[in-house]
Order: sequence, then C-alpha cells, then structure tokens
Amino acid sequence: MTNPDKVNSISPPPLAAVAAGDAEGQTPAQGVGESDVMRRWKREDFLKKTSFALRSLCLVFSLLAFIIMATNNHGNGREFDDYEEYRYVLAIAILSTLYTGFQTFRQFHEISTGRDIIPGRNIMMLDFFGDQIVAYLLLSAASSAVPLTNHMREGADNIFTDSAASSISMEFLAFTTSAISAMISGYKLSKQSYI
Amino acid sequence: MTNPDKVNSISPPPLAAVAAGDAEGQTPAQGVGESDVMRRWKREDFLKKTSFALRSLCLVFSLLAFIIMATNNHGNGREFDDYEEYRYVLAIAILSTLYTGFQTFRQFHEISTGRDIIPGRNIMMLDFFGDQIVAYLLLSAASSAVPLTNHMREGADNIFTDSAASSISMEFLAFTTSAISAMISGYKLSKQSYI
Repeated sequence: MTNPDKVNSISPPPLAAVAAGDAEGQTPAQGVGESDVMRRWKREDFLKKTSFALRSLCLVFSLLAFIIMATNNHGNGREFDDYEEYRYVLAIAILSTLYTGFQTFRQFHEISTGRDIIPGRNIMMLDFFGDQIVAYLLLSAASSAVPLTNHMREGADNIFTDSAASSISMEFLAFTTSAISAMISGYKLSKQSYI
Repeated sequence: MTNPDKVNSISPPPLAAVAAGDAEGQTPAQGVGESDVMRRWKREDFLKKTSFALRSLCLVFSLLAFIIMATNNHGNGREFDDYEEYRYVLAIAILSTLYTGFQTFRQFHEISTGRDIIPGRNIMMLDFFGDQIVAYLLLSAASSAVPLTNHMREGADNIFTDSAASSISMEFLAFTTSAISAMISGYKLSKQSYI
C-alpha cells in the first residue's frame, strides 16, 4: 500500500537539472532508490500518453459512427429512424462522442498545463467506470444492430445497408479502444486505491 | 510496490493460536504492524468469498440460459435453431457455463483444501481476462437477440417468445455477475502486478 501523501509530494525534477545531470554522465539520480522513482514517472507518463491516444481514437470512431448513422437517410423506407436498432446505435454513438470528447479535452488540458480541470482523486473512479460503461454500451448497441443489417443485406446490398454496416464497424472499433482504456484506468485506480 | 516473495511467506496463524489470543483479550497481534496484516487477510478473504459467490451465480444464470434456450423447440417455425441470434445466445451460454463451471470448481477446491489446482501467478491474468471476455460475450449475445424477440412479441406472445425472453434475461444477469467478477479479478491482479 503506497502512502498517497508521499506520492503527491514526489514531483518531477526541473528539466534543467535533468539535462545537466545527463551532460555529466553520472548523477546521484542513478542510485537504486531514485531509479525506482524515475521508472515510475516513465511508466505513469507512458500510461497517460497511451490513455490519451486511446481516448482520441475512441472519439474519432464514435464521431464517425454518429455522423455516418445520422446521415443515413435515403427515403423510401431506407431511413435509420425507422429501425430501433439503428436509433440505439446513434444514441450510444452520441453519448460516447460526448464522453470521450470531454475526457480527451480534460487530458489534453492536463498534458499541456500540468493541472487537472477537476481536482481530487475521485476523478480516477469516474475515469474507470465511465470507460467501462461506455465500452459496454458501445458493444451492446453494435451487437444489437448486426443481425438486422445482416438480414437486410441478404435481400439487397445498397447505400443504406452499407452505411449502417460501416457505422456499426466504427462502433465496434470505438468499443475496442474504450475497453483497453478502461483496463488502463482500472490499473491506475487500483494503484491509488485506499482499500 | 509489494515484494511478491514477502507476500507469499505471510500465512495465516494457526486457528488455535488466534482463539487463545482472543480468550486472553490482549495479544501482540493487536499491534499496528500486525493489524495491517490482519486487515489484509480479512480483505483477501472477503474478496475470495465474493468472487466465489459471483461466479456461482454466473454459473447458475448461464446454465439456466443454456437450458431454456436449448429446450426452446415447439415446431412450426418456432424453433430456436431457425434464428442466428438465438443460436448465438445458446453458444455463448454454453461457453459461459463451461468457463464459470471450471472457475467455480477451482475456487471451491481452493477454499476447501487451501491449494490451487493450477499453481503460479499467471492464473490471475486468466481470471481477469476470462471474466472480462465472458462478460463482453454475454452482453453481445443478449443484446443481439433482444430486437428479434421484441419484433416477434409485437405480433404474438407465445411460449416460444417467452422462453427466448427469459433465456435472454438470464444471460443479462449472467453478464452482470461476470462484469462485477471481472472488476474484482482486475483488482486482485493489479495488487500482484510486477509492472
């Protein structure tokens, strides 16, 4: 169990000091205790960047799913609004876009300024549960729309079914990124947990 | 970061010693260091029991989903085998039953004998990924079969659609228990992780 106060008091050294240490080729920072801390910073930095990349990807995929499904209106019964499965896909794509949009903005702000918009530790809980719930919703929506699209494509393959299929595919991709993101958030949460 | 070797060398004290300590009302085990260890044992014990209960529930729900769907044959086009959604539900119910059956047996064996069937630490990885993947599959299968059942029930409500609906409900319940179980496994895994 790590002491959270101790964790917070550790902050990266000024860049100038690190650069000077590198130039000398030998610094006290290469000792055993310090190298542990360095490794930890590197790991946390790597996790932060991976998490940001995954959320950005999820945002792109959700936005694509949303746009493709929302513009899938071709008249004569070929409108997404006539099928509850496609309405579900659209609703979850919008929700996922909003959530990942907010998270991407928050992480971008944190990376560029070093400060979090929402202070406190509870944000980690929100991160994990948010990612996990969005992943479940995306999978559920995409899965529910697959059989309908399959049935329609057995009869005829047209721009309506193709657009639906691509929107569903985007939602599956968004699910994949969100699921991996949830795993990373869960890992981060457990390392900060008090339990 | 905990030292795994140190963790393994800690084992619960013999029951007799604990009982004797309780009778005296004052034991060295009530010191600060020891009480940390005690709290940890209690937490691990609680997690183990919760995980076992969740997996047993998941096994029951999966088995019910499997049996209800497999016996859902009433002739005249009212056979589950005619619909790919229901075949998917059945396939995932079987898979989930096998997986949770194995895990429940393993945990029961561990609780009763104190030894794990499969030694080593990698089993924690299997626990987490197994639970998580089974949860995703159950949700996907249940979600895919909901729209078809809804459409059929708009026309007629009979024993075939009712059985399908109950099988799907069981699969949703199995998903819920599996998802919570995955969270617990993920927590356990992260506390043992070397990263």
